[in-house]
Amino acid sequence: MTPLGLNELRARRLGLLTHDEAVAFIRTDSDVSKSEGLSAHGRIKLQCNGATVYASLYQVTSDLIDHNEIGLSEYAWTKLGLTDPQPVKVASAPPLQSMTHVRAKMFGEELETGSAAEIVGDIVAGRFSDIQLSAFVAACASPVLTAAETIAVTKAMVETGKRLVWPAGNIFDKHCIGGLPGNRTTPIIVAIVTNFGLKMPKTSSRAITSPAGTADTMETLTNVAMDMAAMRRIVEATGGCFVWGDSVGFSPADTSVIRIERALNLDVDGLLVASVLSKKIAAGATHVVIDMPVGPTAKMRNLESAARLSDLFHEVAGAFGLDVRTVMTDGCQPVGRGIGPALEAEDILRVLDSQPPELSDLAEKSCLLAGTLLEMAGVCAEGEGAGLASIALRDGRARKKFEQICMAQGGIKEPPRAQFSRPIRAPRSGRVTSLNNRMIARIAKLAGAPEDASAGVRLAVRLGDTVKQGDTLFTLVSGTYGKIAYAMDYVAENPLVVEISR
Amino acid sequence: MTPLGLNELRARRLGLLTHDEAVAFIRTDSDVSKSEGLSAHGRIKLQCNGATVYASLYQVTSDLIDHNEIGLSEYAWTKLGLTDPQPVKVASAPPLQSMTHVRAKMFGEELETGSAAEIVGDIVAGRFSDIQLSAFVAACASPVLTAAETIAVTKAMVETGKRLVWPAGNIFDKHCIGGLPGNRTTPIIVAIVTNFGLKMPKTSSRAITSPAGTADTMETLTNVAMDMAAMRRIVEATGGCFVWGDSVGFSPADTSVIRIERALNLDVDGLLVASVLSKKIAAGATHVVIDMPVGPTAKMRNLESAARLSDLFHEVAGAFGLDVRTVMTDGCQPVGRGIGPALEAEDILRVLDSQPPELSDLAEKSCLLAGTLLEMAGVCAEGEGAGLASIALRDGRARKKFEQICMAQGGIKEPPRAQFSRPIRAPRSGRVTSLNNRMIARIAKLAGAPEDASAGVRLAVRLGDTVKQGDTLFTLVSGTYGKIAYAMDYVAENPLVVEISR
Repeated sequence: MTPLGLNELRARRLGLLTHDEAVAFIRTDSDVSKSEGLSAHGRIKLQCNGATVYASLYQVTSDLIDHNEIGLSEYAWTKLGLTDPQPVKVASAPPLQSMTHVRAKMFGEELETGSAAEIVGDIVAGRFSDIQLSAFVAACASPVLTAAETIAVTKAMVETGKRLVWPAGNIFDKHCIGGLPGNRTTPIIVAIVTNFGLKMPKTSSRAITSPAGTADTMETLTNVAMDMAAMRRIVEATGGCFVWGDSVGFSPADTSVIRIERALNLDVDGLLVASVLSKKIAAGATHVVIDMPVGPTAKMRNLESAARLSDLFHEVAGAFGLDVRTVMTDGCQPVGRGIGPALEAEDILRVLDSQPPELSDLAEKSCLLAGTLLEMAGVCAEGEGAGLASIALRDGRARKKFEQICMAQGGIKEPPRAQFSRPIRAPRSGRVTSLNNRMIARIAKLAGAPEDASAGVRLAVRLGDTVKQGDTLFTLVSGTYGKIAYAMDYVAENPLVVEISR
Repeated sequence: MTPLGLNELRARRLGLLTHDEAVAFIRTDSDVSKSEGLSAHGRIKLQCNGATVYASLYQVTSDLIDHNEIGLSEYAWTKLGLTDPQPVKVASAPPLQSMTHVRAKMFGEELETGSAAEIVGDIVAGRFSDIQLSAFVAACASPVLTAAETIAVTKAMVETGKRLVWPAGNIFDKHCIGGLPGNRTTPIIVAIVTNFGLKMPKTSSRAITSPAGTADTMETLTNVAMDMAAMRRIVEATGGCFVWGDSVGFSPADTSVIRIERALNLDVDGLLVASVLSKKIAAGATHVVIDMPVGPTAKMRNLESAARLSDLFHEVAGAFGLDVRTVMTDGCQPVGRGIGPALEAEDILRVLDSQPPELSDLAEKSCLLAGTLLEMAGVCAEGEGAGLASIALRDGRARKKFEQICMAQGGIKEPPRAQFSRPIRAPRSGRVTSLNNRMIARIAKLAGAPEDASAGVRLAVRLGDTVKQGDTLFTLVSGTYGKIAYAMDYVAENPLVVEISR
């Protein structure tokens, strides 16, 4: 083994998952701790293989770590390009200069383009600790980011990540601000609009906090993991694709910021807009439709806040020459019947196949959003898009296109089916007066979604339905019986998942 | 060993120092991880021995931790009252309700007394993660805490900690807002004012980021660790004491808040005032003098910000019936000659003994602050306090009282002397135009202070002194030769520690 030099410690892989914060462990009585004057929970700079990583330090008094070792989280290990216990150079981290801009923003100064670029650059370089990231997010909430500041952050987020360049012509995209279980319109929209010649190279994410992301759902039907070259070939051949885009590297600062917003349960409009638009701009989009579900248990609770967010989307998009339309949709209940990767995939196939009446909400919403894109593209006049989309769905063109894209991605497979299921029944007769999006999402996750792609919830009722005592309200579905029991405990403790009037 | 029940894991002590954030490690593939749907870096609730602890979770994929184990930081281990590998019940932490108030404060709502109480209560109970604490600190910076809000936070901080009640009569106290190395006036002030019958039961802290705290310095002279009963006896007998107060438990929320402010390098006036005053109120003080050093490398950079802080101190103290005087002092250079526990103790002894001219700054400043307390007590007229204090210092009464208190605390000992020293010499002749407080503090710490009580810096010059090339500017002092070398490296890289005009 390479001998240790001055202020070096031997890397040890701890297999510790810490998201995108690098974490390191050093003995309090190691020579480096003493010579560098390191203190518990300070920030340190690690160097190895030409790479530099900033890490949060935990000091250890036990023999969990040896005197000459530095324990590293997975993120730190990978970022340092380590494969074996090499020596790592350790020093106190220099003060983070861009925090000056974060403090100035807090104290009321405008966040300028240059300052935003420094902050976002340091976030991407991993120089921000979680504590510092949290202060940045808070500073963006108060004083709330202006449109100009949001533009600065968006620009910085685009410029610190990878970008896609497409041959001349418009590139269409779609985004949903989230919070609505089962709202899996994307694959249907791609299948519809590419029929009309629109280019829609769709990259989607996996679930972060929800029971399924579009990538999780599409993965039960076809291959979604592919490199840029393969993606380009498919788009050239079919006009569209369904690709898992997380690893593409658009707007890398966004991942850290979203994680902190989630931990704080804090939604900052400017950061949401910067997050969405930076990824669309990086992906080369020219026209984007944004689905904004509004409802008491959706992300947007009321029309006023949705309108404010919509204005910000337009102002920021305009600064980048991006054509954006926001569509406020009904966020009062889940969309479709299935919640969970395979269950949502089944809904998609059924809508493409035969548009059954119980899935009319998913079909109609997909046509509304697809129609908006068709109108933006000038394929039809304003107000005619949804109808046009609906025809392409009904006459089977959308289904054929969907199959064509899947075949180009490597073929279509059957979504997995869960082994266990259990109906939850109405405790009394009456009318369904509310469905709680958040609770339903939680139940689907407790059942095992999205890790267990077959797991989730299948809704049997929608708002306004009349039920008799003992009717099925929804069915728990899972590959593990224990998970069903676990989800049932939650249902028992939360009788307001589905409310029934007397 | 007690067998494991449902959702229980066996506690394992990791010897991990994480300050007052509890941290726990669980295998991703443990049954509890799966059944509770835990995700990397979420928050979990731990229960054992009737205690509940909220912890930040790190998930582990390696065999660092066994399947049925939960690795615990020292803080978590201690808070759960563990002594051996007992079973610990693990669950996802419920959402932190008081974060609602933090978000409301960010969005411009006033922080009410009840909301502040909930937040501070949750901080003390360890329910805030560091990410959430950071958002709270940021929310107090923007919109900046008003006097009313600062009063609410102060009240909550007092009420969540221990309080001292003294027999009828006034209790005097002193605080320095910090940032000035060598500024060890407290022991001299106590020795002076108790001569005039003032009661000054002084509790002091150890160094947090500085090279020495008053408790560190006094510990080189006498015993400073004692319980409340012993402290009361000493105060009854002598009128004063020098006690290490960290473990007394005043204003426990303060520790967490200060740690985050330091990590953010963010000073929030309202939090500083709440921190200082909550501890004084809890300690039973009725009259407090506050030393506010102002200078380019002190905590207060200019008079305007010092005046604003002073106003806030008065308004908040007034709400609690506390008589406060703030004294703005010269913060342009360190006070005295020694920086480090034993070196500062030597300065104190020499001032009490013979007031040598080179320590006139320390003597005069101590008399100014002691005199302010004497005026507040009505011992003399306004403007006469400093003179009166000065007489008590010169005629040896202060020294006798100091010895009396130390004897009551268990005797006087000699401060330790360092084995190694190294002078840093003037690179050229000229006049000393600046001394950098922050750099000098850093050098004293690199030399080993405060852990090595003998270590630090002994200044040979003050602002305005004329030096010849080769004269000693300051001397590095340490019990370890390696530390001297380390401090010298820093000096070599930072030639502006002492600036000399040509």
